[in-house]
Amino acid sequence: MNVSQEQVSLTGHPNLFNRRIATDKPVDQMYQRTFRLDLDKTSRALYVVGTVLKVNLNRSAPPSSTYFSVKCSPNVQYRITPPPAKSGPIPTPFNGNTVLLLTMDTASEVENDSKLSVMFYGKKKEVLGKAVVHLTAFEISLDVDADRDGQVERNNPNKGSWMWGPNGHGAILLVNCDSEHTCRKSLDSEHAEVTRVSDLKDMSPMVLRTSGPAKLPEGYKLTMHISQGDAECVRVFRTRSTAGMHQTLSLRFPDKDFEGLISINLSMLEPSSQGFPETPIFTDKVVFRVAPWIMTPNTLDPVEVFVCSTTDNEQFLKRMRRLVENSGCKLKICPEDMNRGDRWMQDEIEFGYIDSPHQRFPVVLDSPRDGHLQDFPYDVLLGQDFGYVTRTAYGKEVSSLDSFGNLEVSPPVTVNGKNYPLGRIIIGVAFPTATKGRNMTKVVQDFLWAQKVQEPIALFSDWLLVGHVDEFMTFVPAPDKKGFRLLLASPDASYKLFRGLQNDGHGQAKMFDGLGAEEITVDKILSDEKLKAENNYVQSCIDWNRDVLKRELGLDDDDIIDLPILFHVIENRAVAYYPDMVNMIVLGKNLGIPKPFGPKVDGRCALEAEMTSLMGGLGLSCTYIDDFASYHKLLGEVHCGSNVRREPFSFKWWNLEM
Amino acid sequence: MNVSQEQVSLTGHPNLFNRRIATDKPVDQMYQRTFRLDLDKTSRALYVVGTVLKVNLNRSAPPSSTYFSVKCSPNVQYRITPPPAKSGPIPTPFNGNTVLLLTMDTASEVENDSKLSVMFYGKKKEVLGKAVVHLTAFEISLDVDADRDGQVERNNPNKGSWMWGPNGHGAILLVNCDSEHTCRKSLDSEHAEVTRVSDLKDMSPMVLRTSGPAKLPEGYKLTMHISQGDAECVRVFRTRSTAGMHQTLSLRFPDKDFEGLISINLSMLEPSSQGFPETPIFTDKVVFRVAPWIMTPNTLDPVEVFVCSTTDNEQFLKRMRRLVENSGCKLKICPEDMNRGDRWMQDEIEFGYIDSPHQRFPVVLDSPRDGHLQDFPYDVLLGQDFGYVTRTAYGKEVSSLDSFGNLEVSPPVTVNGKNYPLGRIIIGVAFPTATKGRNMTKVVQDFLWAQKVQEPIALFSDWLLVGHVDEFMTFVPAPDKKGFRLLLASPDASYKLFRGLQNDGHGQAKMFDGLGAEEITVDKILSDEKLKAENNYVQSCIDWNRDVLKRELGLDDDDIIDLPILFHVIENRAVAYYPDMVNMIVLGKNLGIPKPFGPKVDGRCALEAEMTSLMGGLGLSCTYIDDFASYHKLLGEVHCGSNVRREPFSFKWWNLEM
Repeated sequence: MNVSQEQVSLTGHPNLFNRRIATDKPVDQMYQRTFRLDLDKTSRALYVVGTVLKVNLNRSAPPSSTYFSVKCSPNVQYRITPPPAKSGPIPTPFNGNTVLLLTMDTASEVENDSKLSVMFYGKKKEVLGKAVVHLTAFEISLDVDADRDGQVERNNPNKGSWMWGPNGHGAILLVNCDSEHTCRKSLDSEHAEVTRVSDLKDMSPMVLRTSGPAKLPEGYKLTMHISQGDAECVRVFRTRSTAGMHQTLSLRFPDKDFEGLISINLSMLEPSSQGFPETPIFTDKVVFRVAPWIMTPNTLDPVEVFVCSTTDNEQFLKRMRRLVENSGCKLKICPEDMNRGDRWMQDEIEFGYIDSPHQRFPVVLDSPRDGHLQDFPYDVLLGQDFGYVTRTAYGKEVSSLDSFGNLEVSPPVTVNGKNYPLGRIIIGVAFPTATKGRNMTKVVQDFLWAQKVQEPIALFSDWLLVGHVDEFMTFVPAPDKKGFRLLLASPDASYKLFRGLQNDGHGQAKMFDGLGAEEITVDKILSDEKLKAENNYVQSCIDWNRDVLKRELGLDDDDIIDLPILFHVIENRAVAYYPDMVNMIVLGKNLGIPKPFGPKVDGRCALEAEMTSLMGGLGLSCTYIDDFASYHKLLGEVHCGSNVRREPFSFKWWNLEM
Repeated sequence: MNVSQEQVSLTGHPNLFNRRIATDKPVDQMYQRTFRLDLDKTSRALYVVGTVLKVNLNRSAPPSSTYFSVKCSPNVQYRITPPPAKSGPIPTPFNGNTVLLLTMDTASEVENDSKLSVMFYGKKKEVLGKAVVHLTAFEISLDVDADRDGQVERNNPNKGSWMWGPNGHGAILLVNCDSEHTCRKSLDSEHAEVTRVSDLKDMSPMVLRTSGPAKLPEGYKLTMHISQGDAECVRVFRTRSTAGMHQTLSLRFPDKDFEGLISINLSMLEPSSQGFPETPIFTDKVVFRVAPWIMTPNTLDPVEVFVCSTTDNEQFLKRMRRLVENSGCKLKICPEDMNRGDRWMQDEIEFGYIDSPHQRFPVVLDSPRDGHLQDFPYDVLLGQDFGYVTRTAYGKEVSSLDSFGNLEVSPPVTVNGKNYPLGRIIIGVAFPTATKGRNMTKVVQDFLWAQKVQEPIALFSDWLLVGHVDEFMTFVPAPDKKGFRLLLASPDASYKLFRGLQNDGHGQAKMFDGLGAEEITVDKILSDEKLKAENNYVQSCIDWNRDVLKRELGLDDDDIIDLPILFHVIENRAVAYYPDMVNMIVLGKNLGIPKPFGPKVDGRCALEAEMTSLMGGLGLSCTYIDDFASYHKLLGEVHCGSNVRREPFSFKWWNLEM
């Protein structure tokens, strides 16, 4: 229904103007739109509540205009700048660049229900012209959950920007990397349409709120738009059931060329006469940040443990099952027809998760290693609320350092006053001075660095034949200090223990007792000068990493425990001499440790005794698992052959201070 | 010369330790290195002044060790943690994880001139073992101009990081994008070697400072290294003349995939026995930021003006020469054989500069437009201390919006408390709601955004047939307010002026007087309803940009002057109806303005009179240049046909608060 000019009463009430309206912003900071008056004909205008129409009166005035007067409907407020003198003449004389600022408090009920009228007068106060504008006010806002409470609030003043921290703001978008499609599996982000309702909760709601007349005035259009670059990163779906309800998802994780911020704009377009393009008169904007992929350290509670079943590891699986069940979590066994003999469950995948105020789920990062386990993460793990992401090293050589035994994460730390409440990612690379070292592939490194919330540390792992950081380090929970200890393999600690045995008269005690041809006495080990030289070199490599870890994680020596482990060198690179106890699985207070087969004193393995004593001091319980034939001889151990999905952090990544 | 054990006197003096040394850092924050003692043989160690050697005594102690004692040369300081009781027994009993921290104040004069000796004792204080280490101390630092004063200071504690602002720190690298080679010209950055001494001053000096014995102990190596990624961005040259002197340059500007930060590392490698790889024992790091490319607004003093000579612009050049010479700068004319008829000097290039504490020079950004002027920037402008950079839109379509009449920069502004002391870049794009608009090529936009120091603003210019922001806006210096005014083309202002003329009885005054067929009266223009509708549309497009500019530059209406300019619409897009006065050249207080050929009142052009009056209020002098036939009719004006190289900002970009 249109309201004719006569139905609208006209009064001037400039004083109402100074109160703050809709957006709660002072007028100076409100979205201002230059608005033009048409003389001698009645025009129409659409007004968006919370904006200011700014009319340059001089520009619209007929030639020789000296005075003007303004009238409007009761629900229209205006202010004149520079303000006319209170006791000045009526009508008001022009004064330089006279500007009329106009706002309305509430949406119109019907089209054209408000009115502005401006009269222009000459020197003798004769009328020179008159501009009449019929106004229709709409409330329009594109809304998101900018305060991160899981609800889409109305017109959050911070919705157009993104700030880290507990006092920060800005909405969050998940990569829709899970699969609601179970029969013919595929990533949801590869679908152009939302086909299942369950998919909706992975998406971030975005609400287009409008109030005012049921229809926009003829020719006006509301349109949503994003930049060219963002268009490759995001999809927006309209929900059929509820008006104005949209669902948004990201198609990709942050990476080297994508910071993770996405803007979505909403513009009101005004029709032009004569077939010219429409012109925008109002734009609203919301900003999302794509949730990063987050890794989970050993200090988080385990949920599921994954291992492979092979022709030769029945006993290993038995021991693992007992340990896992005692730890209150589930053992998931990848069968032979899926693993095709590839037992290195640690190396093919890394478990992480993505989190937002409205949804959270695990996401597996698939290594470019691509051994025979390569189909497992996509075919088995990917599913509803279980995401999948990978990086492919197109055309680049993949090395052993690309296996995810070479990708770990520390517990939360504080370093020189800087907090890392989600810990720091740890990878192993060649020492940068090496001219022909092996490295983790650049695409994976770029991905890890781009997640930002667990700033990575690069250690030196290329000195190892297999080259994984999990061969010389791990973290275990602790009741004191920083809440954890860093465990490091230490040949020095091993030599010290062996020398102690020798001193105490156990020089003839045998390592690898019961393993047949492998047996060797403590005396023999201690007299092997080549082995000693190799372990001196190994210790210097580990010490370099120890110093880096102390610096980068803010650790003291008291935060580190040296475990007695020997290495030997093959092809100029190191492998564990006996089962590498640091390569353990950590399930809460239960540790599953490769059985070291150390020299026995009074029928008890001296290495186990030392390990159990060191860990016992932290309230941790050690289970020694025989992995000698089925893992150790193949250059891996318990950790290499397993993987743990853990509970996410209770700390929310968006509360990080960056 | 080696110093034998006997020549070194041994005393314990732990109290000296607590004073701060070399790096002026407390010991806890110094670079710590885990150091191992070899029992029962004399070993050698290289120590770097400013670091801490940390000896885990427990680890090195023989089994059953209960006590220990430490002695060292006078220039070696040590501390024991946990500290032994002052009145405790001698030798000192072990206490948990006993650690020995060791430092030296100054470099050694000869190899092995210092000594550390640790004795281990059993329960009955019987000697169990002894470790003797001969120490050689070196001072080593990789140094840069981290305090940005043009001098390379010694071991700046902030050299390993980069911080913006007047209280910031971090060295600066220039892209070596000029050419010292004048006969066969090429970019210096394309050369593997520095061939001319003049090239050195474009580079950032980096000094490797060492003191100590003349040679490193046998087998030790100092090596410089950078990451894989940085290796593509930087080159380091050793200067033959001065020991330790290096020169560094960048091969590329910051861009979407390159933040502009480059780290250079220096590591000391220690030899290993038995042919194992060397292991690093000390790493120093310096960080550079590559200087961004900076544009110069109209408010900076002009140095050189560039125009093209064509078969038809002799008179134009004559007027330009007079204006340029009056403004105290040089006119450079690009001859016909070089411009091959392409007169749009504004569109092919944009002048900017790069700046560092040690060197500064102009750099021309070459547009991917590539008209017939395309060889001019490389062949003529590039030279010694005149750099060149371009971005190529491989395989992408280049539009008229890629011409640099569509790339401008504002004077310095402050927006909602945020300072932009170098102004903000302004480009024109399609309105983002447009489904098939023209845009500036992504590679150029990415480059501009990546420079960071003049955060760009995207205006809507696709409504213009040519599509350049310089068709509707420019900036001129002003003695008051923000130091400048934004000038905007305004059809409304033009109609207002024409209506005033009509009112005053000049309706029969002719536009384009003397131009023959073009002539048209004021009355005729005012009665053209189609023209009026077209200009209503144009005004709404300019008003959208006006509102964006007000928001993004923090402008008031008083900072903006509307110039009386009419447009008409061809193929749904706008072109200037008469010479577009806003498309002017600004040379200090002198403006070179397209002669508008407006209606004459009392023999004087009413448009010129209005323009002269508006600019006169700012103390600016207007020169009207007839560009009607040679530029206006070809859809350009004075600004399109010229380009100005200006003085750089006195403000230094690294002092920006980011």
